[in-house]
Amino acid sequence: MKIKVTVWGENVHEQKHADVRGIYPEGMHGCIAAGFQESPDFQVRTATLQEPGHGLSPETLENTDVLTWWGHAAHGEVSDSVVDLVQKRVWEGMGLIVLHSGHYSKIFKRLMGTSCSLTWREAGEKERLWVCNPGHPIAQGLGRYFEIPNTEMYGEPFGIPAPDEQIFISWFEGGEVFRSGCTWKRGNGKIFYFRPGHETYPIYHHPAVKLVLKNAARWAAPEGSRWIDECPNVPIGNAPEALRQKGAWLHKPGGQGLR
Amino acid sequence: MKIKVTVWGENVHEQKHADVRGIYPEGMHGCIAAGFQESPDFQVRTATLQEPGHGLSPETLENTDVLTWWGHAAHGEVSDSVVDLVQKRVWEGMGLIVLHSGHYSKIFKRLMGTSCSLTWREAGEKERLWVCNPGHPIAQGLGRYFEIPNTEMYGEPFGIPAPDEQIFISWFEGGEVFRSGCTWKRGNGKIFYFRPGHETYPIYHHPAVKLVLKNAARWAAPEGSRWIDECPNVPIGNAPEALRQKGAWLHKPGGQGLR
Amino acid sequence: MKIKVTVWGENVHEQKHADVRGIYPEGMHGCIAAGFQESPDFQVRTATLQEPGHGLSPETLENTDVLTWWGHAAHGEVSDSVVDLVQKRVWEGMGLIVLHSGHYSKIFKRLMGTSCSLTWREAGEKERLWVCNPGHPIAQGLGRYFEIPNTEMYGEPFGIPAPDEQIFISWFEGGEVFRSGCTWKRGNGKIFYFRPGHETYPIYHHPAVKLVLKNAARWAAPEGSRWIDECPNVPIGNAPEALRQKGAWLHKPGGQGLR
Amino acid sequence: MKIKVTVWGENVHEQKHADVRGIYPEGMHGCIAAGFQESPDFQVRTATLQEPGHGLSPETLENTDVLTWWGHAAHGEVSDSVVDLVQKRVWEGMGLIVLHSGHYSKIFKRLMGTSCSLTWREAGEKERLWVCNPGHPIAQGLGRYFEIPNTEMYGEPFGIPAPDEQIFISWFEGGEVFRSGCTWKRGNGKIFYFRPGHETYPIYHHPAVKLVLKNAARWAAPEGSRWIDECPNVPIGNAPEALRQKGAWLHKPGGQGLR
Repeated sequence: MKIKVTVWGENVHEQKHADVRGIYPEGMHGCIAAGFQESPDFQVRTATLQEPGHGLSPETLENTDVLTWWGHAAHGEVSDSVVDLVQKRVWEGMGLIVLHSGHYSKIFKRLMGTSCSLTWREAGEKERLWVCNPGHPIAQGLGRYFEIPNTEMYGEPFGIPAPDEQIFISWFEGGEVFRSGCTWKRGNGKIFYFRPGHETYPIYHHPAVKLVLKNAARWAAPEGSRWIDECPNVPIGNAPEALRQKGAWLHKPGGQGLR
Repeated sequence: MKIKVTVWGENVHEQKHADVRGIYPEGMHGCIAAGFQESPDFQVRTATLQEPGHGLSPETLENTDVLTWWGHAAHGEVSDSVVDLVQKRVWEGMGLIVLHSGHYSKIFKRLMGTSCSLTWREAGEKERLWVCNPGHPIAQGLGRYFEIPNTEMYGEPFGIPAPDEQIFISWFEGGEVFRSGCTWKRGNGKIFYFRPGHETYPIYHHPAVKLVLKNAARWAAPEGSRWIDECPNVPIGNAPEALRQKGAWLHKPGGQGLR
Repeated sequence: MKIKVTVWGENVHEQKHADVRGIYPEGMHGCIAAGFQESPDFQVRTATLQEPGHGLSPETLENTDVLTWWGHAAHGEVSDSVVDLVQKRVWEGMGLIVLHSGHYSKIFKRLMGTSCSLTWREAGEKERLWVCNPGHPIAQGLGRYFEIPNTEMYGEPFGIPAPDEQIFISWFEGGEVFRSGCTWKRGNGKIFYFRPGHETYPIYHHPAVKLVLKNAARWAAPEGSRWIDECPNVPIGNAPEALRQKGAWLHKPGGQGLR
Repeated sequence: MKIKVTVWGENVHEQKHADVRGIYPEGMHGCIAAGFQESPDFQVRTATLQEPGHGLSPETLENTDVLTWWGHAAHGEVSDSVVDLVQKRVWEGMGLIVLHSGHYSKIFKRLMGTSCSLTWREAGEKERLWVCNPGHPIAQGLGRYFEIPNTEMYGEPFGIPAPDEQIFISWFEGGEVFRSGCTWKRGNGKIFYFRPGHETYPIYHHPAVKLVLKNAARWAAPEGSRWIDECPNVPIGNAPEALRQKGAWLHKPGGQGLR
């Protein structure tokens, strides 16, 4: 069965900057989606900020195994209620691949709970991404490292919780380093942050970047089931061991709890 | 130097329920604060939902090493801007001790990024908290376990990210178990979730609970410095290795970046 | 393609104790293997302490996706060189399921680096295993919990590094709790510790235990590739950036490094 | 009270290589110890491979809060029984700082459970260590980074379990990166791996390296108590809940358990 990928794009700089439009005439989301379409493993759709509900209706999310997220100029325009839906789907097991400037997206900051800050420089310098675990599914088909000839620099310190696994670390021509590929789990959803992606360079056309995205989507696809608990009350009569009510109580029988 | 503890209390059920007021005539926050005052190590203040800014002004937070958080009925009334301030102080290194029904507080859900759901039952049953690591600072002075004769049950599954360390696990008379003492770090702040605390029982008068809170505040006190990065630009001339601008760019020299 | 499971059994108490032999006439390993054989997903073999090389030749390990390990009376008789082979295969990606008293096996202690100690009692008491994440692949097909009517108790503190994920926690009739299902990763190998399994009770005949083992083997099957680095030297001429030798050096060109 | 630091040195290359002896006339251990002695916080002793018991008698370890470990040429000559003692003290809470080529020491491999492999090159190239969390106690007093003008390169992939916290990442002149400062906990002991330290360069004379070592020893000093469980039996009569023996059993009353 195909892995259902939804490629979300902010789609702002493509409209405003001729340089960006030149590199990504179908939008960055269009280019990223085309990368997935190279493989028969994926069924791909795109969604953008400008569509109703940012293109992420409950039905679309319900039918998404893995969501990729690219945003930069308009994080604040993403509606909180859409972020709520996405976060809930991650807890249910939907994979999430956060790209580049998405480090400051609402959804990533919410899932991390930290500042997600970093340092940056836009000089078109060279980046070399080292593989920290060549046996990991996300690194299959790569050598020891791959290079991006022109890129924006992101540098440490990166304000994230300690990753579950470190997949890539970048070396930059200007002298910095960065944790460029990191994984976490929140609820049953697997999360992969992947650094490459500045919009003024043809980074999503790069074969190694396209390969990593396909590997990561396979890795992040749901396993298990969609459990999210709703804080259910266990009535006294349903306790696994026989119990009788003791002392004072606050909640009425059959109550829902407070939140 | 004394550890500056701020005890935050929602202070709602103490006002509404005679049972709760009977157990906590000074409020639950008053009782928790009195526990800290038993030791010369702490300088304690309280703050409540009803005060301006919920009693958590920037100045108060600036002068807080460890914040304890108890809420239940009114999580939704806590202002997002106050939660912003608290979260930022955690990143800077302020310790945070989240108590009982605080599992559903805005600040805890924000720092975890998960549902923080659980199951529950209010039957006044017995709870036995087992120590998972008797050598841990938070468990000093306890035996292998301690018991609370009457308590609300919280049961697994508990919707949290994997804890950095598991300190306590509870056994309940009715047959459930729960991860009752867990630690995490977000930014430079240490976080301790501690389960005991239902308002209709005298749990914050319990000697072992008071001991754990004091141990936890010593453990959670800041170490290191208050770094939070603001995503600074590194101008090309300041790169550690000599660089020259290549390719197109998006940001104006000296720009602030987008977020 | 089938998942190749090797079921390793110490096979000592089955030979010495009539009670154990009565429950497991084909050995405990035989019963565990029969559980996997219920599903077409697995190709199963067994191996025991008494066979040459404990039945774990390099060829057998090479053809093993997931190894299950049960031992109790004879941990010290397992040869260090066989443990070396198993550990290396775990690093390469072979899954490892460690059962019950295997908490004190050489291979588990080596992979954890900790004492792996616990408390215990043999009273035939009831155990209830709670699911900490009902959406996890290892917990599929179970309800909120399952029960084992007669079992040996294992209690906290359990001397392990913090698990990557907590899958089960046990409640015992006698009042203890235990982290009964835990996962870790070492190298590219997934490790699952699963507590049930005392030899004087028919625990590996229990449908829920058999279900968990099948789920766990599917979860632990290798993904990615078999990378283990051998600490290779990178000759100066092969550095990604042009370099020339500076200062003194210790190793001869083309040397192997020290270890 | 002073932190009792024991600086362990292999002391082999200092004896054999004139270059190394020239830089470290008192041995590398002598130079590292002198760095700690700059601060009144520490009481320092040294121990070397050549001393009886490698200078690490039970009494010495008993009186050690933090042990630093440098070895390279003679890992195999370290006696397993001494490694047993050190590992047990780490579980009890002794801090351990593993330096440079100590990545392949017996004690580090045992505590990690992984290959601890890496890549390397001896070209005297420049290393720049970036701070991943400027607020962490180990990074206090440093700027964003510090540089070592001539060093041996260590490169990713580094075969370690995911660190609890990433403190430093190195950038190398030749184009590689490395996780140069990592923390873990095993039992109650805090472990810090710190990469700098090749013997043919004056790295332990470097002010930033000396500062990090002092910070790390303060961070790694024991907290809590020295618990190591010995797998105690809980007699049926001592169960927290009343129990009676059911079914068959293996162990005699008062028995010690198997291991």
